[in-house]
Amino acid sequence: MVRIVIVGGSDAGIAAGLRAREVDSQAEVTVVVADAFPNYSICGLPFYVSGETPDWRQLAHRTVDELQTAGLDLLLDHTATSIDPARHEVRIENRNGNARAIAYDRLVIATGAEPVRPSISGLGLPGVFVLHTMDDSLRVHNALANGTVHEAVVVGTSYIGLEMADALTHRGVRVTLIGRAETVLPTVDPQLGQLVEDELRRGGVDVIVGAEVEAVERDGSRLAVRAAGGVCAVADLVLVGAGVRPNSNLAASAGVETGINGALRVDRQMRTNIPDIYAAGDCVETWQRVLDRYTYLPLGTTAHKQGRVAGENTVGGQRIFEGSVGTQVVKVFDLAVARTGLRDKDAAIAGFDPLTIETEAWDHKAYYPGAHRLCLRVTGQHKDGTASGGADCRALAGRSGQAD
Amino acid sequence: MVRIVIVGGSDAGIAAGLRAREVDSQAEVTVVVADAFPNYSICGLPFYVSGETPDWRQLAHRTVDELQTAGLDLLLDHTATSIDPARHEVRIENRNGNARAIAYDRLVIATGAEPVRPSISGLGLPGVFVLHTMDDSLRVHNALANGTVHEAVVVGTSYIGLEMADALTHRGVRVTLIGRAETVLPTVDPQLGQLVEDELRRGGVDVIVGAEVEAVERDGSRLAVRAAGGVCAVADLVLVGAGVRPNSNLAASAGVETGINGALRVDRQMRTNIPDIYAAGDCVETWQRVLDRYTYLPLGTTAHKQGRVAGENTVGGQRIFEGSVGTQVVKVFDLAVARTGLRDKDAAIAGFDPLTIETEAWDHKAYYPGAHRLCLRVTGQHKDGTASGGADCRALAGRSGQAD
Repeated sequence: MVRIVIVGGSDAGIAAGLRAREVDSQAEVTVVVADAFPNYSICGLPFYVSGETPDWRQLAHRTVDELQTAGLDLLLDHTATSIDPARHEVRIENRNGNARAIAYDRLVIATGAEPVRPSISGLGLPGVFVLHTMDDSLRVHNALANGTVHEAVVVGTSYIGLEMADALTHRGVRVTLIGRAETVLPTVDPQLGQLVEDELRRGGVDVIVGAEVEAVERDGSRLAVRAAGGVCAVADLVLVGAGVRPNSNLAASAGVETGINGALRVDRQMRTNIPDIYAAGDCVETWQRVLDRYTYLPLGTTAHKQGRVAGENTVGGQRIFEGSVGTQVVKVFDLAVARTGLRDKDAAIAGFDPLTIETEAWDHKAYYPGAHRLCLRVTGQHKDGTASGGADCRALAGRSGQAD
Repeated sequence: MVRIVIVGGSDAGIAAGLRAREVDSQAEVTVVVADAFPNYSICGLPFYVSGETPDWRQLAHRTVDELQTAGLDLLLDHTATSIDPARHEVRIENRNGNARAIAYDRLVIATGAEPVRPSISGLGLPGVFVLHTMDDSLRVHNALANGTVHEAVVVGTSYIGLEMADALTHRGVRVTLIGRAETVLPTVDPQLGQLVEDELRRGGVDVIVGAEVEAVERDGSRLAVRAAGGVCAVADLVLVGAGVRPNSNLAASAGVETGINGALRVDRQMRTNIPDIYAAGDCVETWQRVLDRYTYLPLGTTAHKQGRVAGENTVGGQRIFEGSVGTQVVKVFDLAVARTGLRDKDAAIAGFDPLTIETEAWDHKAYYPGAHRLCLRVTGQHKDGTASGGADCRALAGRSGQAD
């Protein structure tokens, strides 16, 4: 009977455990979970903050009971503190500091990511939140519940920032959104980012782009956010979404090699350089199919797939992770934005000779009740009229869409 | 300069003409259109009848102006009466009976389908419509507009019947839907058909299944619909949707081979047995990818693709039609139903050893605002535990979904 230990109870870790049990119902699977919320949807936090998902328990993909019924032993409120690869042991401790070692035949590192704390002074002030975990979200929710938050500043214009601006507006809070990039949602082409910015303004959000936030300061009972160039916004609440970085210290300390952004290096079977240690999810480098190389691309859907591959391989499988094309979708007020593959700029950096076309189309036939216009941008490999044409068979799969 | 003549101005014919011009901007493309409505969406007729698409002109995929600007010469209100393959000529006549011959280098037959007139007596009575063309639809619309239609009977429970039941209900007409099959929408598994029937009843439609309609008779100023077994419904309007059959007489008279249901035989390049004569759309046999053989499968999306292939090949292309998997989607009141591939029953008939699983899932994460339950049925090739497993790599791609 193979003993599988998994460190991490979010998408990758739970997917690994469930898959291992699917393939080998005799496998003994233990999941070390740092808090009491295994298998929670981080992507759902904005809907909890907005009030549209009233009960935070709804954010669990599966309940603890369901996970246990599927055969996972959950060690809730336990942290893994070190790994001894030679002895095949993980040292863990609970919230009281009681420590012990547990043995593994195969280990899966699924420690995820942690929010980047940007070099902004004052992030420790009350009322400032760097959002990432369920705990953070409950704290924001509580701050909103007491009715003293009328204005908020959201720092960061990526997915979480836009969704939080939407969520807070839905709660009746007046929002100022501040971002460093020249257009919001910098993972899509600027032309689409502009459409998202227009939608945010239509929704009542003040948008400030191209501004580097330097400090959050007390301003009486409120908070002032200062950016270079004199930009300043005053609010009752400040949320910071500045991206994430891999939470790879535990594994790196045990000798697992790291690479891009400090993420754990894995092969396509999600094996690290250390025998019997696998890794998956936001703590690892991710194979990018279009680029044909590894990148750092923390996404829930990818973490889930990588977890399944790792889980299957811990019980004797030979599954290959097929890679990501970077598909992402976000809804901002009444605008849905989707992207996949490479943007024009990414393609050029990667050495392609990209050609991008922008067009408009309907999501249904125009006569269909409720049909909407779509703005589409498609990026492909530019055709060299003098060449044989072989190169342009390579699909860049770059496409960004917007529905209004 | 190549002269292309296309007979038929619906999806296949227009797609062929546009594609020929895309590939060869010197091609001289003439499209013979029997009425004044080229490139109209037959699929959109229910939305015009319901009033949701208020102007019938909205049902045009493209206007006459747009088609002419794209380089198509349109001969509206002209009918092709015969083909002389040896002389490469088509004989046409206009509504006044004036006839002439036009020459072609390549000819595309895109004459579509015509509604099956089932063996029901009384189909010629005023107030009885066998729906298929724009003209039919305008007549139904006019019949509704004078306000004397309070009750209707729809005969046939395939796509058009269900959509018309929905559309008439939307107009405030009380509908009785009568079908021969044991469940409505017989192109999906009966278990899903039952869900559609439930939705129709929730929407106020009287549904009668397993009933063979024999006659429509005058009943004072109204119409009585009689089926075997004594079933009878009385109404002001009767719509009949009993499927379609290929409109292949013109080509067959010129020596084009016919096959299944009398549809024209084509190869994967949409060539008929007669040199320089291509055919596409609802008048031809369609390559079914899962079955690996030809079938008769009249669908707008398929017609469009076949038309593009034919059009490209008339100007020197070597394009192959990749085949259909029979994907279809319909919305009935608030229920969307989609299917693709083979149903369990079709797979068994085709010699597969099918296994069908029914399950439920959410279309979004359960916590997401507006998430709906989906009922899914997936059909695959049953695994033979003793065999090598090679056979079950063959994807049946059978899947039917229902969103509530």
